[in-house]
Amino acid sequence: MNFIDLIRKKRDGISLTKEEIEFFAFSAADDSVPDYQISAMLMAMFLNGLDETETLNLTQAMAHSGDVADLSAIDGIKGDKHSTGGVGDKTTLIVAPIVAECGVKIAKMSGRGLGHTGGTVDKLESIPGFKTSLSSDEFTEIVNKCGLCVAGQSGRLCPADKKLYGLRDVTATVDNIPLIASSVMSKKLAGGADCIVLDVKCGSGAFMKDKASAKQLAEKMVEIGRGAGRKIAALITDMDVPLGYYIGNSLEVIEAVETLKGNGPEDLTELSVLLAAKLLELAGKGTFEECKALAMSKIDDGSALKKLAEMVTLQGGCSDYIFDTTLFTRAAYECEITAWESGYISYMNAEGIGAVCVELGAGRLRKEDVIDPSAGIILHKKTGDRIEMGEKIAVLYYSDEKLFENAKQQFMKSVKIGNEKKDKLSVLIEIVE
Amino acid sequence: MNFIDLIRKKRDGISLTKEEIEFFAFSAADDSVPDYQISAMLMAMFLNGLDETETLNLTQAMAHSGDVADLSAIDGIKGDKHSTGGVGDKTTLIVAPIVAECGVKIAKMSGRGLGHTGGTVDKLESIPGFKTSLSSDEFTEIVNKCGLCVAGQSGRLCPADKKLYGLRDVTATVDNIPLIASSVMSKKLAGGADCIVLDVKCGSGAFMKDKASAKQLAEKMVEIGRGAGRKIAALITDMDVPLGYYIGNSLEVIEAVETLKGNGPEDLTELSVLLAAKLLELAGKGTFEECKALAMSKIDDGSALKKLAEMVTLQGGCSDYIFDTTLFTRAAYECEITAWESGYISYMNAEGIGAVCVELGAGRLRKEDVIDPSAGIILHKKTGDRIEMGEKIAVLYYSDEKLFENAKQQFMKSVKIGNEKKDKLSVLIEIVE
Repeated sequence: MNFIDLIRKKRDGISLTKEEIEFFAFSAADDSVPDYQISAMLMAMFLNGLDETETLNLTQAMAHSGDVADLSAIDGIKGDKHSTGGVGDKTTLIVAPIVAECGVKIAKMSGRGLGHTGGTVDKLESIPGFKTSLSSDEFTEIVNKCGLCVAGQSGRLCPADKKLYGLRDVTATVDNIPLIASSVMSKKLAGGADCIVLDVKCGSGAFMKDKASAKQLAEKMVEIGRGAGRKIAALITDMDVPLGYYIGNSLEVIEAVETLKGNGPEDLTELSVLLAAKLLELAGKGTFEECKALAMSKIDDGSALKKLAEMVTLQGGCSDYIFDTTLFTRAAYECEITAWESGYISYMNAEGIGAVCVELGAGRLRKEDVIDPSAGIILHKKTGDRIEMGEKIAVLYYSDEKLFENAKQQFMKSVKIGNEKKDKLSVLIEIVE
Repeated sequence: MNFIDLIRKKRDGISLTKEEIEFFAFSAADDSVPDYQISAMLMAMFLNGLDETETLNLTQAMAHSGDVADLSAIDGIKGDKHSTGGVGDKTTLIVAPIVAECGVKIAKMSGRGLGHTGGTVDKLESIPGFKTSLSSDEFTEIVNKCGLCVAGQSGRLCPADKKLYGLRDVTATVDNIPLIASSVMSKKLAGGADCIVLDVKCGSGAFMKDKASAKQLAEKMVEIGRGAGRKIAALITDMDVPLGYYIGNSLEVIEAVETLKGNGPEDLTELSVLLAAKLLELAGKGTFEECKALAMSKIDDGSALKKLAEMVTLQGGCSDYIFDTTLFTRAAYECEITAWESGYISYMNAEGIGAVCVELGAGRLRKEDVIDPSAGIILHKKTGDRIEMGEKIAVLYYSDEKLFENAKQQFMKSVKIGNEKKDKLSVLIEIVE
C-alpha cells in the first residue's frame, strides 16, 4: 500500500477502507511514514471529514496500535469513566469507589494533567506513599481484592493516537469532532472496560465551548463505543464555572472526601451521583432512578469512603489522610482575594481560573513540569452568588511568594461582578445514549 | 507570526495576507518551519484554494526566496520561453536562435530532464564540449556577444519552490492549478525576462491530460505574469503524440538542426514558429502574422542555424556538430520495431513513449541517474498514419543490449493500430493572453 495514494484518496473525498485506515494508524505508531505525510493526511481528514465507519476503524486501529489492557483475570463487569477535562473536576475520586462498592469493577488507567485541567493520577499522588505506577499483575490483584484501582498510563498505550495527537497540536488539526472522538475512544477501548460513561464538559472551562459541539462530540463517541460493542452513554455537563469549590491536587482530594462523607457541594455531589448511576445502569444494576438511589446510599452509609481508603492502602498510600484530611501538608502561603465591588458574580472564566492554578504550581504547562501538590485555589463564591465589596471571593494557596501578584491579577481578570443576579446553571445539560 | 495560526487561517478558508504568504515561503526556503507544518499548509491550500492575490504573492515570494537573475547588464528586451514538459519537445533549440536573430535577447536558464520529459540542458550537453554550468559574468558576456545563452540552473534559484515542490510530490498535493502555476512562474520571474511565452502541453504525454485543465493552468500563469508586470502569453498545444519524430538527447539536437535548415517535420516547425512569433510580438516586433513571417525568414535564410552554432561555440561546444550532425556518436545498438498488423496508428501514448526512452537510457528516473546522450527513439509513423504489417514504426537506439526486449514491449503497449483513420490533431489548440 502506497501512503501517497491514501492521502490522494482522502484528499479527493473518498472514504478509506478498514485496511487503509489500519495502514495509516500503524504507520503512525511505528514511525514508518514521515511526519509530513501524516500531517498532510490529517489536514485532508480535517477538511474532508471521516464517515462513521472510518471513524470507528480509526479508533479501533489506534486502540490496537499498542498494548491493550487484558482484564480477563478480573471477574465481573468492568466499568470506566472519562471526562473530557475541566477545572475542579475530581469526580473520578468519588464515582470510582461508589461504583466499585456496588459491585462493578473499576480497573482504570488515568492521565496526568496538562494545561488548565488536572489529572486524577496527580491528585492521588498528593496522598503520601500512593503509587500510580503499577505492573499489570499488581493492577489486576488490587482490582480483584477491592474492586477498584486507578493507575497511571503505562507501556505503549495507543502509540498511534500519541503520534497523531502530537502532530495535530502543531498543525491546526485539533478541533475536529471525528479526530477528537477517535483519540479519546481509542484509549477507552484499549482500557478494556465493558461499560463506559463519558462526561463531556461544555462551557468556558471546557474544550467544547458550546452545547452544539459538545453534543456532536458526545454523539460521536457514543456511536464509536457502541460500534465497538461497549455499553456506553455520555452526560453533557456544565463547565462554565469550576466544579465544586476546591481546585488543586490535595485540595481536590479533600473535597472529594468531603463529598463521600455527604458534605460535598451540590454541583459536585449531583454530578458524581449522576455519573455513577449512569455507569451502574449500563452495568445492569437497575433503572437510572434506582441507580441514583443506590449510588447515594453508598455515600450516606460511608461505604464508598471506606472503599476509597481501601484502594489507597492497597496502592501504598496512607489511608489516614482519607479519614483525616487535615493531615495534608498545607501550602506555605495562602492569601485571600476579596471583592473589589459589591454585586453578583456574573461570570467566572473556568479556563482562566484553571490557568491561575497552573501559575500557582498546581498544574503543568509542559509534560516535564513538576507540580506542587498543595497549591491551588479554594473558591468562596461562584457565578450567581451575591457578594459585598471586601468580602472573600477566593483563597490562593502556593509555595513561592513571588507567584501571588501575577496569579491574583489573572484571577481578577477571570471573574466579573455585576448588578444582575444570574441563575446558577444546572450541572447536567443533557444525556446522550 | 505563528505558523500554526497561519495554517488555521487557511484551513478555515480565510485568505492570507502578503506578509503571511511571505512568511510561509521564506520559512520553507530557510527550513525554519518543520516539514509537517508546511505539508499541512499545502493540503489546506490544495483543498481550500488560493485566490488571485494569494497566488501572485506566493509566486513573487518564492521568486525572491533565493537568487534572482540580474539581467541589467544585458541591453535590450529579454525574452524567455517555457514548456510545461512534453516528449520530443526540442523547440527551445529552434525558438531561441530565431528570436535572438530578430534582436530579442534570450538569457535562459533551463532545467534537466526528469521522468518522461527531457531537458534542454541535457540535449545541449550531447554536443561535445558544450558547457551549461556558467558563472553569472560568463552568462552575461555570451548573451551580450551573440544574443543568446542557455545555461543550467545555478545557485539558490527559488529555494522555497524547491522545498514546496519536494513536499508536494510526497503528500499528494501536486495537481493543483495555483500551486503548479506559482511553481512554474516563480522560476520565470526569478529568471528576469521582460517577455515570456509559455507552451502549455495538453494530452497523453503532458502533465495536463485535458484541454480544460491546460487552459486553467495557462490562464493562471498568464494572470501571474501580468500581475508581476511581465509581457506574457501562453500557447496551449497538443502533446497527445510526441512532437516531431526524434526523441532522445543528441537525436533531438539533430532534428532541431534539420528544422532550422527548413527540413523539419511539420508539427515541430509550426510550433517553433508560433512560439517564436508570439515572443517576438510580445517584444514589440510587429503583429503576430508579421512575426510569424519574420521567424520563418530566419529559418529560410539559414541565419537562425548560424546563430545556434555561434552560441554553441561561445559555450565551449564544437559547432561542427551543428553543421554536420552525422558527427554525433551513434548508439551502439539500433533495432527496428515493425507493425504487428496492418491499419492506421489510432493512438500513441506519448508518456509511454517517453518512458521507453528513459528505459533506453535517454532520461532519468532519479536526479542522480546518468543519461546516455545517444539513446532514444526515431519514430517512423505517428497517430493517423497508414501502416502495413511488417513496416517500420520506429527504431530504438541504446548502448546496452539487455535494454531492448523490455523497451520493445513497453513501446508496443504505447501504440495502437486500428482500422479507422484518425485525423491528425493540429499542434496549436488555443492561445491564451
